[in-house]
Amino acid sequence: MRDNTTTGQGRMRWDGNGEMTRLYIAGDWGTSNLRLYLNGPGGVQARVDGPGIATAGGKAGELLDELTRPWVAQHGSLPVLLAGMVGSSIGWVQTPYLDCPAGAEALGSALLEVRPGVRIVPGLACVNPTGAPDVMRGEETQLIGLLALHPELRRGRHLICLPGTHAKWALVHDGVVETFQTALSGELFALLNGGSVLVPPPHRKAPTDAATFRQGAERGVASGGAILHRLFETRARQMRGQLDPALAGSFLSGLIIGADVAQAISLFPATAGERAATVVLVGEPALTGLYAEALSLLAVPSRRLDGGDCVLAGLAAVMERTQW
Amino acid sequence: MRDNTTTGQGRMRWDGNGEMTRLYIAGDWGTSNLRLYLNGPGGVQARVDGPGIATAGGKAGELLDELTRPWVAQHGSLPVLLAGMVGSSIGWVQTPYLDCPAGAEALGSALLEVRPGVRIVPGLACVNPTGAPDVMRGEETQLIGLLALHPELRRGRHLICLPGTHAKWALVHDGVVETFQTALSGELFALLNGGSVLVPPPHRKAPTDAATFRQGAERGVASGGAILHRLFETRARQMRGQLDPALAGSFLSGLIIGADVAQAISLFPATAGERAATVVLVGEPALTGLYAEALSLLAVPSRRLDGGDCVLAGLAAVMERTQW
Repeated sequence: MRDNTTTGQGRMRWDGNGEMTRLYIAGDWGTSNLRLYLNGPGGVQARVDGPGIATAGGKAGELLDELTRPWVAQHGSLPVLLAGMVGSSIGWVQTPYLDCPAGAEALGSALLEVRPGVRIVPGLACVNPTGAPDVMRGEETQLIGLLALHPELRRGRHLICLPGTHAKWALVHDGVVETFQTALSGELFALLNGGSVLVPPPHRKAPTDAATFRQGAERGVASGGAILHRLFETRARQMRGQLDPALAGSFLSGLIIGADVAQAISLFPATAGERAATVVLVGEPALTGLYAEALSLLAVPSRRLDGGDCVLAGLAAVMERTQW
Repeated sequence: MRDNTTTGQGRMRWDGNGEMTRLYIAGDWGTSNLRLYLNGPGGVQARVDGPGIATAGGKAGELLDELTRPWVAQHGSLPVLLAGMVGSSIGWVQTPYLDCPAGAEALGSALLEVRPGVRIVPGLACVNPTGAPDVMRGEETQLIGLLALHPELRRGRHLICLPGTHAKWALVHDGVVETFQTALSGELFALLNGGSVLVPPPHRKAPTDAATFRQGAERGVASGGAILHRLFETRARQMRGQLDPALAGSFLSGLIIGADVAQAISLFPATAGERAATVVLVGEPALTGLYAEALSLLAVPSRRLDGGDCVLAGLAAVMERTQW
């Protein structure tokens, strides 16, 4: 961790090596899952899981108390830092978005205290490269954690992609999120794979065929992102005997991911000195593998990182910069 | 109707004015509805409706017999000509697609006799302007009917759009469909409006706000069709207080239709002499009105025609050209 000893009114203390000298509770509270960590000197000491904020609803506070009672009983009152959809309109309280550019310092200065001792990391907002307002909530903490875990990404300008339901493409400059762009890729795939004419009902499952994915990705990349007139191709190829209906989902997945990377690379051009040429892909290895393959069709190099520890590292990085 | 008296082996007869001299049954059999017409000299003499082919399933023949029994009882055996999804994989029998370029003559020569006296108009296939295989089934009969009803469209090259679940953009040259392009616009809107994060559950209804539609259409047109990175804007604007959640569907509708027309105009450029500048929009007035507005943002003139009578006119036009 960075050496960033707080002084004066700060209630959190750090030793000379930048290690926290007291315990706190870090919480990754998304729509579907809650992961609570007892964190502090020497790293995570305990972990407990709970229901997502969509389920917890109006009882977030009681649930937090219940799940952390053993830790508080042992260690006394502990500061709590939460990130994710807990701070959204479906969460405990809706925290205002922090405008980009923003990094760990800015996030640490903009925590919302939802009740004494419990703070929530705000989401980020920006005007994205298409000129539209854009938002993220939860991914800002992943990004900050990624930078904490990979110091080399804290220098220079990097394009970082977090694929998923709402894929986020973030341009990070010297450790600060400058701007970002959301693509509806994962949600669009789920809707089309699960309930459209493109994939016949018996075959509406997770795609698995690598060669067919690649065919779709080639078409998606060729679209440059103009996917509305490419989607029906998934059905027409079946009607014309050019695509096995059982593989329709794999083709569709390639089409969407290919369109995603082609448009993103066009929105964030790697012109001379603008950003590092290598795109950083963060997430589940299976998914980042698909994105890496689609990027390779554009001859864009990529680096794949597992995002597993990023939220916890991000919460720690924000905690370090907080006057608590 | 065109003067096209058949001779020799033809079983259908025409008088010297191109009017049919005997009765036949015309059927528009789509996924959800069946419309049967007793047609012939002087026009439609009777009509009966029935269930769509998705419901009729394997009993299409029996259903047809049952619904037309009174007509046959009165007039004796009658030839039957059907169009639509009745000829698809979910239909009575799957008719092969006819490759473009194709017009009424070609369609009339490629009817599939599903049983003695009952024929189905084939769908059309092409390689579309994106280089992909594309198909239509039912719309070919609408297009032929449109040309029959509007003779001025039978000369020169025209871009004709049939908006809907699967919007079809067809390039028609001297009465022949040269090529066409499907956009998944209607189905995509229905899926996203009905079940995505873009439109909050209480507001998942048909869009109605004209000003918000126009805002979305401006953004969609500006995308040039690259919609994957624009869709999330519908949600982000709500999060940032720039879009009333109750109007999210109207914005989304504009976004998709704007992207549809922008990409279609780019795929079918109206370069010198290539095609008439005016796009012909065929369909429900409310929907063609939205497409006309989106086209106007690109300064593309359009002409709106109600598609109500097109299928019947198309069946008649094909019938005229059939050796029966």
